[in-house]
Formats: sequence, structure tokens, C-alpha cells
Amino acid sequence: MSTSSVTIFGSGNMGTAIADLARRAGRTVQHIGSADADAQVTGDLVVLAVPHPALDQIVSAYGDQLADRTVVDITNPLDFSTFDSLVVPADASRAAELAAAVPGAKVLKAFNTNFAATLGSGQVGEQPTTVLVAGDDAEAKQDLLDLVTAAGLHAVDAGALKRARELEALGFLQLTLAAGDQIGWTGGFAVVR
Amino acid sequence: MSTSSVTIFGSGNMGTAIADLARRAGRTVQHIGSADADAQVTGDLVVLAVPHPALDQIVSAYGDQLADRTVVDITNPLDFSTFDSLVVPADASRAAELAAAVPGAKVLKAFNTNFAATLGSGQVGEQPTTVLVAGDDAEAKQDLLDLVTAAGLHAVDAGALKRARELEALGFLQLTLAAGDQIGWTGGFAVVR
Repeated sequence: MSTSSVTIFGSGNMGTAIADLARRAGRTVQHIGSADADAQVTGDLVVLAVPHPALDQIVSAYGDQLADRTVVDITNPLDFSTFDSLVVPADASRAAELAAAVPGAKVLKAFNTNFAATLGSGQVGEQPTTVLVAGDDAEAKQDLLDLVTAAGLHAVDAGALKRARELEALGFLQLTLAAGDQIGWTGGFAVVR
Repeated sequence: MSTSSVTIFGSGNMGTAIADLARRAGRTVQHIGSADADAQVTGDLVVLAVPHPALDQIVSAYGDQLADRTVVDITNPLDFSTFDSLVVPADASRAAELAAAVPGAKVLKAFNTNFAATLGSGQVGEQPTTVLVAGDDAEAKQDLLDLVTAAGLHAVDAGALKRARELEALGFLQLTLAAGDQIGWTGGFAVVR
């Protein structure tokens, strides 16, 4: 299954970068912003490219429409007031919480370990940008892996949705390193095969 | 403070690689193996380069000698029977458990995100190998960062010992990717500045 249409919530730097990837992969893109009340979701693949505090509101307004679709969580659920912990249970993930809140949706975790600039340039320093994707639905996961590679980036299957815990830990660590000037926002963890 | 002498528990591929780094940094190295009963720990910097199930035994036999020293935990505390979870509480780390078990020791988490081959070659693919170091004692941490850079590798301060949770998640994810042939044992997560 290749989803021809992608719906993207959020028009920040991540939403913009992921929309660009989708177009480069030949998909059509629908944007839904916070000002669009009662929009009709048209994409079979839905990317929630919003900060984690906005997820609940989207689920509340669009949950019924998300069932049966592939839903991609890209968030890093940091406590933004301290930058020292996550706001999800330590043995779980924001993606797992989302999957519980939207029954029937095929939830994937992806893009949370990629800084926006590296999605646009296709490079982490001099390494190719790799998107790590975790999820329980093999077909949905393969479709997103295909989109990423069709857009010219590398993609790696990071396992079941349970691995979202580790992906969120990696994203968290990467953000703390960048915030502390240990790495730049065009750098980060490159996946070397 | 630069510790002139390093004691390394364990003579597997990680212990051997870390001993080599210490020598390249101009330090003298003491090895203590599992057959050495009642050895005298001589190094101010002690690296426990053993699999996580062996830590308790070392603490039991050498705990008194480890107090006041810098003690480096390199373990990835995986459930080796499933390769699907860690054996430490999800909000903690093996390093935090070690710190609690050896009061007075300055515990650091390091090397758990490095495959042994990348310590020897100094490269993750074509990227320089970076050792991530977390710990609460600034002086102890700086000494290990200095050792690593003196040996020709890159070193990055990953923050307080609390970040060992995220380092262990990263090491866990990296091991699952290698075990699943998504990356090779000479690759992994390279830190790009």
C-alpha cells in the first residue's frame, strides 16, 4: 500500500520539512493548521507535526477521523520548563499514549530524532540523514519508509512501537546536547550502517 | 586532577579497547580479571568493562576499595533473553543503581554507546568516534573526557548522571539495530557537531 495523499498537522519548521519530503516523494499534501476548525482529513497518512502539548487537542477534534489511518507522532515529550525530563511515564512513550487514545489508528513514531534542517538538507554534517521509524503495523511502517527513501533520505526500521521509548530518549538526549551547545542544530546523531 | 593510573575490570573486547585508549593517553593500566581474587585496586580511575550481570559481584568483592575513586559503568543492561527491554527501572539506569551501591564513588556512565571496533579504529564509518560521558562529579568527568581526547577520539559531556537513562536507551536501541542487521558493528550512532 502506498498512500498517495499525506495530511500534515502543523506548519512549523518540522511540518514544512516533512511536507517537502512528501512532495519530493510524489505525494499530494494537505495542511491542517490550528486555525482550521472542523477540517476534513483527506490523507491516508497523517503526520502530527506539532509540539507534544498540542496532541491532545488534535485527538479531541480529529480522533474519529484518524481511526484506520496511519498516524505519525514526531514529538519529543520534554518538560520544556526544565529540559531535564520527559512528561510521559518512563516505561512508555508519547507514541504509545497516542495509540491508546486513537484506537484503530496505525501509529508510527518517526522524525523525532531528526532536526528540521537535516530533513531539508538531507545531511547530518556530511552523513546522509536517516529517519528512524518504529511501529507495529508493518504495512504502514513500510509506506513511510518508502516515502522517506523516495524523497532521497535514508530510512531505518527501528522495530515495534515499543521502541518509541528509546527513540524519545534519543531525541531528548539530542535536544539537551544541542541546547547545551555540544552539537549544532545541523548535526546530531547520524546513523552509520 | 588527571588520574595517572587506570584499573580495568574485564578483559573482553571492550576492556581491551578501553585499556588501549588509556595507554594511548599515557596512563598506566591495571587489569583485574574474574580469576583475580582479592586484588588491590591501584587506579584512581576504575572502568568496570564487564557485562551488566557481573557488576553486583564486583561491588560485593571490591565495593570498599571503590569508594573515593572514579568508577565508570559501561554496561547496557539488556534482558539478553528477549533483547526487548532493559532490566533496570524505566526511570533509572544501571549507573544510578551502581552509584547507590557504592557510596562515595564518583560514578560516570560512558562507552556504552560505542561498539568496541569503533573505539579501536577511532571511526564510526567515516565519522570520528565520540564517547558520551555522563556524571555528577565535574572533575571526574573532565578527567575521563581528557583521557578520551588524549587518546585521539572525540568526547562529549552528556550531562548529569541522570542522563544515563537516555544513554542506556541509546545503547539499547543501537544494539537492537545491530542485532537486526540494520547497522553494522563498525557503525552505529555517530555524534555530529
